[in-house]
Amino acid sequence: MPHITETIAVLNQRLSRKEITREALVAEALTGAQSKPAQYVFTKTYGDAALAAARYADASQAAGVAMHPIAGLPVSVKDLYDVAGETTMAGSTVCEGEPTAKADCPAVARLRSAGSAIVGKTNMTEFAFSGVGINPHYGTPVNPTDNQVARIPGGSSSGAAVSVALGLSVAGLGSDTGGSIRVPAALNGLVGFKNTQKRTPLQGALELSHSLDTVCAMTRSVEDCWLVDGILAGEALKVVRRPLTAMRFAVPQTLVLDAMAPEVAQAFNRTLSALSKAGAQIIDIPLREFAELSKINSPVGFAPIESYAVHYERLMRAEHKFDPLVAKRVKLGESVTAKQYLDLINRRADWIERTEAVIQGFDAVLCPTAPILAPEIAALAASEEAFFKANGLLLRNTSVFNFLDGCSFSLPCHDAGELPVGLMVSSVRGDDARLVAVALAIEACLQMA
Amino acid sequence: MPHITETIAVLNQRLSRKEITREALVAEALTGAQSKPAQYVFTKTYGDAALAAARYADASQAAGVAMHPIAGLPVSVKDLYDVAGETTMAGSTVCEGEPTAKADCPAVARLRSAGSAIVGKTNMTEFAFSGVGINPHYGTPVNPTDNQVARIPGGSSSGAAVSVALGLSVAGLGSDTGGSIRVPAALNGLVGFKNTQKRTPLQGALELSHSLDTVCAMTRSVEDCWLVDGILAGEALKVVRRPLTAMRFAVPQTLVLDAMAPEVAQAFNRTLSALSKAGAQIIDIPLREFAELSKINSPVGFAPIESYAVHYERLMRAEHKFDPLVAKRVKLGESVTAKQYLDLINRRADWIERTEAVIQGFDAVLCPTAPILAPEIAALAASEEAFFKANGLLLRNTSVFNFLDGCSFSLPCHDAGELPVGLMVSSVRGDDARLVAVALAIEACLQMA
Repeated sequence: MPHITETIAVLNQRLSRKEITREALVAEALTGAQSKPAQYVFTKTYGDAALAAARYADASQAAGVAMHPIAGLPVSVKDLYDVAGETTMAGSTVCEGEPTAKADCPAVARLRSAGSAIVGKTNMTEFAFSGVGINPHYGTPVNPTDNQVARIPGGSSSGAAVSVALGLSVAGLGSDTGGSIRVPAALNGLVGFKNTQKRTPLQGALELSHSLDTVCAMTRSVEDCWLVDGILAGEALKVVRRPLTAMRFAVPQTLVLDAMAPEVAQAFNRTLSALSKAGAQIIDIPLREFAELSKINSPVGFAPIESYAVHYERLMRAEHKFDPLVAKRVKLGESVTAKQYLDLINRRADWIERTEAVIQGFDAVLCPTAPILAPEIAALAASEEAFFKANGLLLRNTSVFNFLDGCSFSLPCHDAGELPVGLMVSSVRGDDARLVAVALAIEACLQMA
Repeated sequence: MPHITETIAVLNQRLSRKEITREALVAEALTGAQSKPAQYVFTKTYGDAALAAARYADASQAAGVAMHPIAGLPVSVKDLYDVAGETTMAGSTVCEGEPTAKADCPAVARLRSAGSAIVGKTNMTEFAFSGVGINPHYGTPVNPTDNQVARIPGGSSSGAAVSVALGLSVAGLGSDTGGSIRVPAALNGLVGFKNTQKRTPLQGALELSHSLDTVCAMTRSVEDCWLVDGILAGEALKVVRRPLTAMRFAVPQTLVLDAMAPEVAQAFNRTLSALSKAGAQIIDIPLREFAELSKINSPVGFAPIESYAVHYERLMRAEHKFDPLVAKRVKLGESVTAKQYLDLINRRADWIERTEAVIQGFDAVLCPTAPILAPEIAALAASEEAFFKANGLLLRNTSVFNFLDGCSFSLPCHDAGELPVGLMVSSVRGDDARLVAVALAIEACLQMA
């Protein structure tokens, strides 16, 4: 299927040269959404509305009206976000019959205001609770990067990633609480950007953990992520491009390099060499603070505690409708006291302060997004132990930067013909504009290599 | 004792006419701090440092240097705030031996940067836990407005209020979590301003409830409160003065007018008449949302939950050193679950939204700051039941606007010769600048009446 393989910038060049139309791109995306590789990717499509948006943008171009670069281009929206008139299901069935959303949530409303053509709602892990992407209710979208074996898409923004990887969208609106943008971006060879949490409003996104949830997206390039971040935040980051020769990166030696699959280690080391050769300074640092995280997050972390309060009524009403692997983790929050929760908040604040102090002098922190390749769906569906082990590994590195309230990119760093591997490029809270400049420079270097 | 009886603006006029010096004002304040009426007001004084600040400001004036109006004038700081090199006791003894503060907290640092002469740390209810102002460890400052009977100062900023009422400070830095600025301001005939919480940084203020704590002050006039708020917030509110004839006030008929002492009812009704006569529109509204508060705050509210986490170690170490009436309330937070706490946060957010919608059309909401006059110390010290009853009444009205995350003034509205009664003038979150304009207009009207 010759769906979209180009970035928003390139598509806009082709559009302005009239080589293509938005209407055709959207029509193709809608057809593609019905194809076999896209099975389980969308939980709903918006054919008429998307085509209308595309035609409007085409007509506006013809009339000489200035438009946002995303106008009329197909985007997908994770089933986590309120769309006016619909019940937000968030990958569950237990929400059936709950009240419909009165309004589009800000993220959706802003994507619409920018003129984008929302082609559909994408599948996800139930209530965004895992980095794997398996969904027992709606099926599991298959990772399109391997023709041989059905591998997981990564999650929780599983459908979002596959919708972009298949060329059915230029951007997938997802969310990132512990890695739900960056993990599927890494496993599908895309760029994912988890901004600093407060840049983008959380309203109308079904909560997993309000302390950690971040509204963000994945795309085909750093520039596209930057563009979509500007839409979601209501204000574009002001980015000053800089050369790699002016950059200094830290590679933490604690936690994030453990248990790397050989393919990941190879891609990561090759990437560090390329960056070093391009003039970037790369410095190993201990970052022992990362070793504290499991203790800080015991007995449980934010997601079970906060989602238990969110899903309490649903659990009481119909626990049997939950994915048992999700219900199990939500219920870990049941017995937590307010004091334990407040202690966790305080330990986090203290840890952030100490960790920021270590990282602050660097332009970014580099590590693999996930230490493993995408596992096979069958293996994880067959064994709860294998599922939780993979889930833990997939989210281990990404979740560090959610806990830090930082900003973090995943960039493809594998070679053609290899299974996707993500390079995670991260920094402290509020450093988003500088991080975009770093990611742009790294991306350019890796594309030349 | 002829201590300070004038506002900061009037003092500055007299200073510029060289009728007085800052050094003399501060010296007088320091002498006054040792006098009988000031017993139990300060837990510590800073004679040399305060005199140095006063002399510096006098010398700067002589040298023609522009200064902040508060420069060299005596101010007091509640014992809740970190002062570099000292252990913050917060009215307790259990904190003895704990680490000293590494730095002045922002509130203290900003008061110093503005040049003010910090004359001492003021006494308070232990850990800011009550609106009464009785302290079993350091004694209870006596309300100076009644020569006959020893009445409570109100709390928790008890010493702060008496330091200003006795003319030993132009401003008392306090805090307001449920009324701790406005209640003592009302009972001592002062102006107290609780700003919207986020205007002023909470760092270095010993926490009672981080959801509700507000860093703020009391003074002799609305203008002085406005000035000090600007120091504490790091930026002065931009206030546009307007006439009373352009203002519309709501008087809620639920909760806040219940159980008024005759003296309070009389002063309040007289005030409404005066405002009405001056052209303000006064409208009774039901505001039934206020009736929900006790249910929303059950089983317990924010202060016990959040302070239990704060004081847990101290309780384990030496509960016997706590004021038993404080320990009792802190321990109410012990058995609260994370879910109950998160539910409370959500119920509050929902209530704020609904209540703001009702109030938003008015320039302010008016009610008595407290429904009773200052009770006698002896009566409350003698009976736990009387203590808790008085405490509940004293904080009942003020705490509504903490829960609303609003902004709120207490203005004196009694006649000369009467015991102090406060008029509370409140609005929604972020409406601080408009509220200052309202308070200025009301104050001017009441001073002419």
